[in-house]
Amino acid sequence: MAGGEIERLIQLLAKLPGLGPRSARRAALYLLKRQEAALVPLLRAMGDAAAHVRTCSVCGNLDTADPCSICSDGKRDATLVCVVEDVADLWAMERAGVFRGRYHVLGGVLSALDGVGPEDLAIPALVRRVVEQEVKEVVLATGVTVDGQTTAHYIADRLAGTGVAVSGLAHGVPVGGELDYLDDGTIAAALRARHPL
Amino acid sequence: MAGGEIERLIQLLAKLPGLGPRSARRAALYLLKRQEAALVPLLRAMGDAAAHVRTCSVCGNLDTADPCSICSDGKRDATLVCVVEDVADLWAMERAGVFRGRYHVLGGVLSALDGVGPEDLAIPALVRRVVEQEVKEVVLATGVTVDGQTTAHYIADRLAGTGVAVSGLAHGVPVGGELDYLDDGTIAAALRARHPL
Repeated sequence: MAGGEIERLIQLLAKLPGLGPRSARRAALYLLKRQEAALVPLLRAMGDAAAHVRTCSVCGNLDTADPCSICSDGKRDATLVCVVEDVADLWAMERAGVFRGRYHVLGGVLSALDGVGPEDLAIPALVRRVVEQEVKEVVLATGVTVDGQTTAHYIADRLAGTGVAVSGLAHGVPVGGELDYLDDGTIAAALRARHPL
Repeated sequence: MAGGEIERLIQLLAKLPGLGPRSARRAALYLLKRQEAALVPLLRAMGDAAAHVRTCSVCGNLDTADPCSICSDGKRDATLVCVVEDVADLWAMERAGVFRGRYHVLGGVLSALDGVGPEDLAIPALVRRVVEQEVKEVVLATGVTVDGQTTAHYIADRLAGTGVAVSGLAHGVPVGGELDYLDDGTIAAALRARHPL
């Protein structure tokens, strides 16, 4: 078929989330046919990222600086910390552009099935951070899944003695959502949390 | 959100076929969180590909050698040439593992709408190759689309005076295909090309 270099490139591209063997071949061809326009710039961007991007030692975000640009931004409220599962969730929160506090990335959720315990996540670091720094409120923004909510309850329990206020994101009908397309659980949650108009 | 390096990596990944902005973010996170296991090997594979992979000057295949491993394989029939639109089609043909001749990659199809003429494709090179080397049969394996078939007819016309035999792939019911799921054109083609059992 082709040289071992091409095969190896396809194999590694196929490991990226969202790419299978067929789309990895297409991606490899795209790169090989556009060396100057696509392959070299991507090579450079990946090299820069490998050289400069690191995990923030305070919150777990990925950035070129440590502490990251959010943790070192004096205009952001250091007493308000939003707990997210993953850096992708932090990015989603930042895209919404409404949260002016700081973050704490857990690196996953508790899972008895997968053998993920509190020590495997950044939960002890969160408790330390809450105790040592003057955090006033922790917003738990883990996913609305069984494991995500278990993790949120566990964290709320761990923080119970520290005096910090613990809150969670509201559940309800998504903006732009239609009832007809919503699952029963979401409708039930929205009804329970109904508010006077 | 994150450093400019991460943004740039996401933007470049989003240009790969099969990846959109959201999957490019997931792919970037995958790479950044697994620097040693994923980013560095991919970086190395892309660097090797950029340094070594080139277009075969005979057939247009991509390989680390020029002429490519197919063109320089003495066991493959040099008098039988299969004409394909793209390197991806050559790879698909090789995966089938039944063609023992050599290839000629056109680099596209004729298209009046997109302004692609014979000189933009490797058609003059194919005619030269047929005349200068002792090619006995050309198999036209362009796609069964309007442009693909137009291109095949044009090439057959151009080769008419050279004495080479010109053939095309058979059209019909795909292996594993069910009539109920087939389009009318394919059923009509399969009926026209019916054969005694």
